[in-house]
Amino acid sequence: MSRKLRMGMVGGGTGSFIGDVHRRAAAIDGMIELVCGAFSSTAEKSIASGITLNLEESRCYGTFEEMIQKEKELPEAIRMDFVAIVTPNHMHFPPAKMALENGFHVVCDKPVALTLEEAEALQNIVEKSGKLFALTHNYTGNSMVKQAKAMVAKGELGKIRKIQAQYLQGWLSTSLEKTGQKQAAWRIDPKKSGIGGALGDIGTHAENLIEYITGLKIEEIAADLGKFGEGRILDDDGNMLIRMENGAKGSISISQIALGEENNLAIKVYGTKGSLEWHQENPNELITRWLEAPKKIFTPNGNGLHEEALEVSRIPAGHPEGYLEAFATIYKKFATHLSAINNGETIEKLDYPTVEDGIRGMKFIYAAVESDSNNSAWTKI
Amino acid sequence: MSRKLRMGMVGGGTGSFIGDVHRRAAAIDGMIELVCGAFSSTAEKSIASGITLNLEESRCYGTFEEMIQKEKELPEAIRMDFVAIVTPNHMHFPPAKMALENGFHVVCDKPVALTLEEAEALQNIVEKSGKLFALTHNYTGNSMVKQAKAMVAKGELGKIRKIQAQYLQGWLSTSLEKTGQKQAAWRIDPKKSGIGGALGDIGTHAENLIEYITGLKIEEIAADLGKFGEGRILDDDGNMLIRMENGAKGSISISQIALGEENNLAIKVYGTKGSLEWHQENPNELITRWLEAPKKIFTPNGNGLHEEALEVSRIPAGHPEGYLEAFATIYKKFATHLSAINNGETIEKLDYPTVEDGIRGMKFIYAAVESDSNNSAWTKI
Amino acid sequence: MSRKLRMGMVGGGTGSFIGDVHRRAAAIDGMIELVCGAFSSTAEKSIASGITLNLEESRCYGTFEEMIQKEKELPEAIRMDFVAIVTPNHMHFPPAKMALENGFHVVCDKPVALTLEEAEALQNIVEKSGKLFALTHNYTGNSMVKQAKAMVAKGELGKIRKIQAQYLQGWLSTSLEKTGQKQAAWRIDPKKSGIGGALGDIGTHAENLIEYITGLKIEEIAADLGKFGEGRILDDDGNMLIRMENGAKGSISISQIALGEENNLAIKVYGTKGSLEWHQENPNELITRWLEAPKKIFTPNGNGLHEEALEVSRIPAGHPEGYLEAFATIYKKFATHLSAINNGETIEKLDYPTVEDGIRGMKFIYAAVESDSNNSAWTKI
Amino acid sequence: MSRKLRMGMVGGGTGSFIGDVHRRAAAIDGMIELVCGAFSSTAEKSIASGITLNLEESRCYGTFEEMIQKEKELPEAIRMDFVAIVTPNHMHFPPAKMALENGFHVVCDKPVALTLEEAEALQNIVEKSGKLFALTHNYTGNSMVKQAKAMVAKGELGKIRKIQAQYLQGWLSTSLEKTGQKQAAWRIDPKKSGIGGALGDIGTHAENLIEYITGLKIEEIAADLGKFGEGRILDDDGNMLIRMENGAKGSISISQIALGEENNLAIKVYGTKGSLEWHQENPNELITRWLEAPKKIFTPNGNGLHEEALEVSRIPAGHPEGYLEAFATIYKKFATHLSAINNGETIEKLDYPTVEDGIRGMKFIYAAVESDSNNSAWTKI
Repeated sequence: MSRKLRMGMVGGGTGSFIGDVHRRAAAIDGMIELVCGAFSSTAEKSIASGITLNLEESRCYGTFEEMIQKEKELPEAIRMDFVAIVTPNHMHFPPAKMALENGFHVVCDKPVALTLEEAEALQNIVEKSGKLFALTHNYTGNSMVKQAKAMVAKGELGKIRKIQAQYLQGWLSTSLEKTGQKQAAWRIDPKKSGIGGALGDIGTHAENLIEYITGLKIEEIAADLGKFGEGRILDDDGNMLIRMENGAKGSISISQIALGEENNLAIKVYGTKGSLEWHQENPNELITRWLEAPKKIFTPNGNGLHEEALEVSRIPAGHPEGYLEAFATIYKKFATHLSAINNGETIEKLDYPTVEDGIRGMKFIYAAVESDSNNSAWTKI
Repeated sequence: MSRKLRMGMVGGGTGSFIGDVHRRAAAIDGMIELVCGAFSSTAEKSIASGITLNLEESRCYGTFEEMIQKEKELPEAIRMDFVAIVTPNHMHFPPAKMALENGFHVVCDKPVALTLEEAEALQNIVEKSGKLFALTHNYTGNSMVKQAKAMVAKGELGKIRKIQAQYLQGWLSTSLEKTGQKQAAWRIDPKKSGIGGALGDIGTHAENLIEYITGLKIEEIAADLGKFGEGRILDDDGNMLIRMENGAKGSISISQIALGEENNLAIKVYGTKGSLEWHQENPNELITRWLEAPKKIFTPNGNGLHEEALEVSRIPAGHPEGYLEAFATIYKKFATHLSAINNGETIEKLDYPTVEDGIRGMKFIYAAVESDSNNSAWTKI
Repeated sequence: MSRKLRMGMVGGGTGSFIGDVHRRAAAIDGMIELVCGAFSSTAEKSIASGITLNLEESRCYGTFEEMIQKEKELPEAIRMDFVAIVTPNHMHFPPAKMALENGFHVVCDKPVALTLEEAEALQNIVEKSGKLFALTHNYTGNSMVKQAKAMVAKGELGKIRKIQAQYLQGWLSTSLEKTGQKQAAWRIDPKKSGIGGALGDIGTHAENLIEYITGLKIEEIAADLGKFGEGRILDDDGNMLIRMENGAKGSISISQIALGEENNLAIKVYGTKGSLEWHQENPNELITRWLEAPKKIFTPNGNGLHEEALEVSRIPAGHPEGYLEAFATIYKKFATHLSAINNGETIEKLDYPTVEDGIRGMKFIYAAVESDSNNSAWTKI
Repeated sequence: MSRKLRMGMVGGGTGSFIGDVHRRAAAIDGMIELVCGAFSSTAEKSIASGITLNLEESRCYGTFEEMIQKEKELPEAIRMDFVAIVTPNHMHFPPAKMALENGFHVVCDKPVALTLEEAEALQNIVEKSGKLFALTHNYTGNSMVKQAKAMVAKGELGKIRKIQAQYLQGWLSTSLEKTGQKQAAWRIDPKKSGIGGALGDIGTHAENLIEYITGLKIEEIAADLGKFGEGRILDDDGNMLIRMENGAKGSISISQIALGEENNLAIKVYGTKGSLEWHQENPNELITRWLEAPKKIFTPNGNGLHEEALEVSRIPAGHPEGYLEAFATIYKKFATHLSAINNGETIEKLDYPTVEDGIRGMKFIYAAVESDSNNSAWTKI
């Protein structure tokens, strides 16, 4: 018997960017309903947020600890099924740990934790708990990213030789953190962000996208990080060389001081038979190049796609899919997996990012910071 | 006190394209929940659809008449607030009429009715009922369309002189209707579609977009319609000249046999001070041109936008918004309006399309068909 | 024995746009040298222009009559081979006639003449003279236009059903002609331009491109012309419906008051098997669409081209070709033809526009003006 | 008194890509005529090439030595003014040296020489000779590159912080050199190409473009070069980190094995006030981004340009300029400079690349190779 899954949220109070994103992404497919939350640092604020979300006041909690304890005591038919964690990085591990240890599944924003140690501890906790853990590397939910991965996996590009990825933003070009803007403030603070600034915030998306599409691991990295904003102690820019496990070479460029860039995540992958190129800001296009044929442009739900791409589209070709739909695909696959488990079905793990992707991300951050402090020496991930 | 609005749906059974679209669009902002439906032509099918949507079996009805009657008998705290009508054109008027006359608000897909007479009758019913009626001309929900409209309204383009609009699809290039494809079958059938084929299905979107952005009415039209598909009696293609009430001139091209086109709705508007261009398939860009300055490209939530555009974006600049988000904006504005009324607040009518837009659309269809039958003579709308 | 062909020019004095274009286009392939000219309306000005062009003063003439007579008297080894006519429209016919009747070949700018009568007279003169006559419908020289034509001719698009063409400029948005700008002044003057304004200047390019690519003739036209500029008596804007000889339908939009548009000539052709799209402002791309395959993008000298396209490229793929190269291709094919004749070789007429294209253009102008004066009634071309 | 400058060519026999390019580029502006050449390695072949170019047989030489000696003996009114060197890299220095030492000016393809020693020797020779030396870093001739440079120079972008450049080709993805293709064969041969493969062929263009646009020198480089083609001993791919003299950071990616890429040179420059982006394959667009204003797109001869950009355009806005026009601009500026000197005028050196640019290019190649051999250690240029 199918039913909506019940979600509790940690963080994401009124005015939060990413809280709204998670709520909308969870709602799109009609498989999940928000039932409770610890949205803010005080009960009052949390209740205020909850009311605008049409929640019962009794299920708007002041702390994640309270939420997890109280929900656990509710009848099974009512209590939340899983926790969505949408807080700054330093507040990922504690609620994730507690939720898992109390029998709740978890969806968590990236990077997975504040430190690599936390991430590795979390991996153990996930394994012990037997619960599901999804990490919202949302860009892997895009239809054209699915197509890209499928094309590489099926060998259509041949052996991969060269990779270029970038994730460029400009919103920290000025000292936004000094204006009281909360989004900026925590991201430049190592106590909340960890040892990586832009590295954790956007670099891990680029790293994840590379490994997801190519199916190859980044083996080592040579990083030159920038701290251009006045007084910043974390990176707000980075240029990196990468070497892949199969001998491919490439580069990653990330920035939050690339003035005027909005959210320019892009990737190019070159093989011995074909190549591909994808731009997040124009996501409804996958450009492919071939030895002897003209360029071919794939579109969501369009001609010539693999099943892996087709099955994530919700609307016909030519009806643009955006950021939220890709994000929702992570939730959809997680919810499909969880519903199957709830229904006692055995199911292969579906294609969504997990704590393992989180650990890769943390290792990437650590290797980049180490390389940078060694004047860009090659450093293993 | 805020609460979710309760939606009942007419049509939109499993496998329907537009039913899913309405459900997702209604869900994105967390303001609406689907509570009941008459999804299909039989109770069994309707229940089957309802179950996959996590509805109670008792609220999956076999006919819209049953739905409206039964829901009316439910306690006010439970029964649906409004009906969403997502059936083929010939099934817009009957449920809309009955819903309104029984105290339910209505959201209806376009074109508003099968005939102009029905549309005019519906207008009277809406007025008498005092209920809200929203028509899902979804493209007017796009952020960049809002910006375009605001720029024209503020006089930034000067006097409008020239307009080009097109809505090109290719999915009826072959005789798809003969393969049993349901989407194709009803659209080429005058009993279900009305006197317009592509005209009603997509032409009205183009017409609506022109009048919405420019704030000008199309005064007359000279149309040359095509019926290229073997055996088709309704238009599947059309080329039209238009003259606007202010003396501007232009053209509209529509097609469902423009092979390879996916959903290529686009508009260009040229004034005496500036010009603009927007493409639905690449919706996150508004191209503007100026007498003495270089081209400027606006983006959702990006620099330099008017409030009308900013307020419909849900995510930061660079995070692509798609078809569903624009569709959801119609629902959001309708729901905001309805919630205000439910809360006894007085509120100006919000910016979403209504039965008046529906009548314009029907008149457009009728004028185009008449012009075409008079060898493209100029015909008043 | 190969040698450079010797060109004399009528019009194109210092400051002329199109004179420079012809000179550069003629020079690119090293097959032609400019040897003389009647560049301006007085001998002094003509000599002044000639000097900046490194010509001998004795071959800078005050009138085209003088040029043709004097050159004819020069020894064959020195005298010009052909005349390039780059004057306003009313000055096409007289020098063309005289040149042909005195044994010189002609390259002429479009539209071919001031009136249809002149054009038809010219056709007779060309035929009687046995000399070559090339009309510079330069856009047919583009590599991607050659590819488009070849694809249609080989049946790759199937039967053509729909055509959209546009040629949009904005440079006459303001009353430029009142500022003394010469380019504007003659174009809005019926004595110099003929009965068509934008129609002759750019409309004929659109008409020619349609017929060139599709190999089909426009059979009839319904035109709504605009005269938006204050006091203008010739069209500066036009919207037209077209019907092709094979039953295809379509539209043409032209404008010189489409504010902000630079030189936006574009065409889309839809068939029963495939479709194509080309934009002059981004000429190094031919977009093609297919029933079951993804979009394919062809590029000059790139993968998958037909010989007709390959043979006009001068540089490798990825090295952008521009306006001048396409223009030069007209000269190159004309020069190749003429050299062959000079060498006594028999050669099939090469693929460049001639007086026949000129007559089609004049008939297009006349039909459009007639239709417009009959409130857009369908008018045969 | 103005006259055409007389050019002699070394290399560029029939079938050569770059020889034709130089000839066309020199011809476009009507300031230069080709009068002689040592096109090939034997007199027979050279004469054969010369004949197709309409040259006198007596001025088609078997060697560059012969050409320089014989031309020197011709009367001043006839003999060549300058030598254009379009041979593989190892044949740049010898003819350049001899030409300069015998009183001829030189235009030379890049990289300037086979080795850094040669390049530095050449610099001395140029200085001693007092003759002009132009290096064809042709991309600096693009209108939009001129605009970019001017914007940076005028401080419109503020302080430069981040630079990304790439030059991606795919034509050496396969072992083309083993098929007898001459273009490929010499480029992969260190005796003809020098110590850099792709580095010299295309990397120097990327390096030159960065330094040209930003007016900043690359201070150090960390390079990871690839030799993907079977048996290749020179790089066919490279990923590089760069640090600029002012503290800006960035990256360069080059490749000739980026399968499917045609000639994808591109650059992005980010400052504290604005940013810019340019793509060689779509050269008629300069994308600029701003702190608070929307994106602005500049076009050649379009609105809002600086004089530096305007003065290199030959045609109105919207008429695409291509590769040849940019190349021709190098020749035009060189020819203008040389004509002025010939006329005894004093003139400031015009804006075209010279032997100094050539030395920067050689240092770039050397630093990249050294860094690569030190496992990508930072290396001063």
